[in-house]
Amino acid sequence: MTERREVALVGGATTRWGVREATWSELAQEVGGALFRAMPELKAGDVDSLFLGAAEPERFAFQSHVAPLCAEQMGLTPHRIIQRTELACASGQSAIRSAYAAIASGLSDIAVAVGVEKMNLPSMAEANSAMACVMDRAWDGAHGATAPPFFAMVAQRHMLEHGTTEDALAAVSEKNHRFANANPSAQFYTKTFDRAKIQRLPLVAPPLRLGDCSSMTDGAAAVVLVSNALARRYTDTPVLLRGSGQYSDFHNLAHAGSLTDWVGLKHAARQAYEMAGVGPKDIDFAEVHDCFTISEIVEYESLGFCGPGEGGRYVLEGRSDLGGEVVVNPRGGLLGCGHPLGATGIGQAVEVFEQFSGRSPASRRVPDPRWALVHNLSGSANVHSVMIYEGAAA
Amino acid sequence: MTERREVALVGGATTRWGVREATWSELAQEVGGALFRAMPELKAGDVDSLFLGAAEPERFAFQSHVAPLCAEQMGLTPHRIIQRTELACASGQSAIRSAYAAIASGLSDIAVAVGVEKMNLPSMAEANSAMACVMDRAWDGAHGATAPPFFAMVAQRHMLEHGTTEDALAAVSEKNHRFANANPSAQFYTKTFDRAKIQRLPLVAPPLRLGDCSSMTDGAAAVVLVSNALARRYTDTPVLLRGSGQYSDFHNLAHAGSLTDWVGLKHAARQAYEMAGVGPKDIDFAEVHDCFTISEIVEYESLGFCGPGEGGRYVLEGRSDLGGEVVVNPRGGLLGCGHPLGATGIGQAVEVFEQFSGRSPASRRVPDPRWALVHNLSGSANVHSVMIYEGAAA
Repeated sequence: MTERREVALVGGATTRWGVREATWSELAQEVGGALFRAMPELKAGDVDSLFLGAAEPERFAFQSHVAPLCAEQMGLTPHRIIQRTELACASGQSAIRSAYAAIASGLSDIAVAVGVEKMNLPSMAEANSAMACVMDRAWDGAHGATAPPFFAMVAQRHMLEHGTTEDALAAVSEKNHRFANANPSAQFYTKTFDRAKIQRLPLVAPPLRLGDCSSMTDGAAAVVLVSNALARRYTDTPVLLRGSGQYSDFHNLAHAGSLTDWVGLKHAARQAYEMAGVGPKDIDFAEVHDCFTISEIVEYESLGFCGPGEGGRYVLEGRSDLGGEVVVNPRGGLLGCGHPLGATGIGQAVEVFEQFSGRSPASRRVPDPRWALVHNLSGSANVHSVMIYEGAAA
Repeated sequence: MTERREVALVGGATTRWGVREATWSELAQEVGGALFRAMPELKAGDVDSLFLGAAEPERFAFQSHVAPLCAEQMGLTPHRIIQRTELACASGQSAIRSAYAAIASGLSDIAVAVGVEKMNLPSMAEANSAMACVMDRAWDGAHGATAPPFFAMVAQRHMLEHGTTEDALAAVSEKNHRFANANPSAQFYTKTFDRAKIQRLPLVAPPLRLGDCSSMTDGAAAVVLVSNALARRYTDTPVLLRGSGQYSDFHNLAHAGSLTDWVGLKHAARQAYEMAGVGPKDIDFAEVHDCFTISEIVEYESLGFCGPGEGGRYVLEGRSDLGGEVVVNPRGGLLGCGHPLGATGIGQAVEVFEQFSGRSPASRRVPDPRWALVHNLSGSANVHSVMIYEGAAA
């Protein structure tokens, strides 16, 4: 589509993620401060639009109509577009995609995409109830089919069909926690985390143990997206959004197809690759949705980084690590950074910008990247969202 | 922006609105059936994207991640973009704006924008609590500053500053309920509703009475938006989206400016008018956000249909009625049709299509329209959203 304007990612910031003594509003205010400190060239009045990704503030923070609340807390007065998007665990990428379409179409020039989520309620029972309504509540969630049991079924099938081992699951956890140890905004620091130790942790839903699961996290992240013609005002290292893909298969679990062959992700990825004019072999690093260790293994396969059933071997052979074929989750992933639903997709985009600008700590810095891929899934892996970025220096 | 593709509204449908014995999912399924019956040319597989407007399914229907649930219920498999937008009472228009940007930028060709809301819970206390969190809950909502008291304050100030009368408020209600009587999907039929009767109804928040307030409504609506190059596949009377404007002023009521001079709406309207290349005098009919009668009066002024303070006289003189200057809310408005939050903005767009295609009943049909304006506000009138449409026959 030649009529589409080029869109650039020119900066971003996150709060510290974890169990935070901060309200939803305070997290929004905090990420606003962090963003303006990270980008001294950015003036609040220049930001014409705000795209907020937030999954369940109605349940977790008892607040709706969160977009203007977020704008106010960040000190912004959106005068072109203001919007909150919800797509459960992929709400953040949804906000970025909206900002992308708005800028590409000329409706916005300078937009903030922000994600805010406050998940650590006083009551864990309430929080679990809120998570259950991400699934088809009446058919699935109310009967206990929340995320851990669903992904445990995926893991069991993958083990049965492909011989994937608990050691392979632990290898994903070990890698991502190692990267998180060098990420100052991550929820978890696990200096002595190794595969053997991970396999002795308590079971959550067999075969998934504590170290196989991402967590309930409070946190916020924000990025700035602009028409590429304006990008150099804000950074010497703009990153271009080159590809976008989504696919929604089903909702009710009774309509799910194979648990281990994620057809929706293959569709979404193909669409993003074709739009960007690249393939899996071109990707230098990827931020993928490791809500559970097994997810990352299936994603290697569905994204085309390796063949069907080879995901376990792929991680055990170090092919998704620094020095491997595609560095996967150098930020630390959802496993290491935590998973504040609406903020996760934005936090991944912050990492994309920082990697391309060479700001990431050496122990997790991807050497000379050109192409990056970001993936989010939502619900029972029934919706997949993929974006592809290119460093402008390339 | 010459690079933007033209976007056309090519059809739509609604469910019956009211207190419905139907779940959220059933309303989504019902509107899907209605849409495919209204548009036999539309094939489910042609729809590449779904944009859902829904305000509070988490609170009203105990369900999140509603976009894929809606897609499944409607029989759709979105393979480009799937998204839910939330902007409280303006969630529906937010979905249309997202669809517009996606099509204008070439990311989507054929999109469904749908609104679904189930508000009539078993417990009205729960429903009120859900509505309170549309405001800044901690500062405003928790202290009782929900919509009726806020708009009552607007009315009191407007009466004080401009001499607006209860008779003028009742005139808005009378007109919109009269139009609703000829709308088969409307919540209310009030054959004997006149200004005198309206002024004898019980007070809700002085000076607002029962007939001055829109209601808690269950309902759904859907429209189809396409790249204009494809429009004639679906209809002989496509309607073009020509202007878009939004503005977010504040959230916490302590930061509100004048209660009666809606600066944010003036900004949003100016932006939409400039983009469409028209002014208030060009508008043939308008669907505006009459959540309360006083809202419509302030909107006449802020949209430039009349001067500051003249809104009361404007309606009493019939200038917003059939045969007047701008036919306002020929659908029946939120007052007559009900206000299922996320469905309202979509229902207004269905009306825009039907008016331009000459399908509206004669007693509320706008003669030979060329330009239409749609307005939604959200929260305490702190966010305003405006779109302008042009009939393609013009």
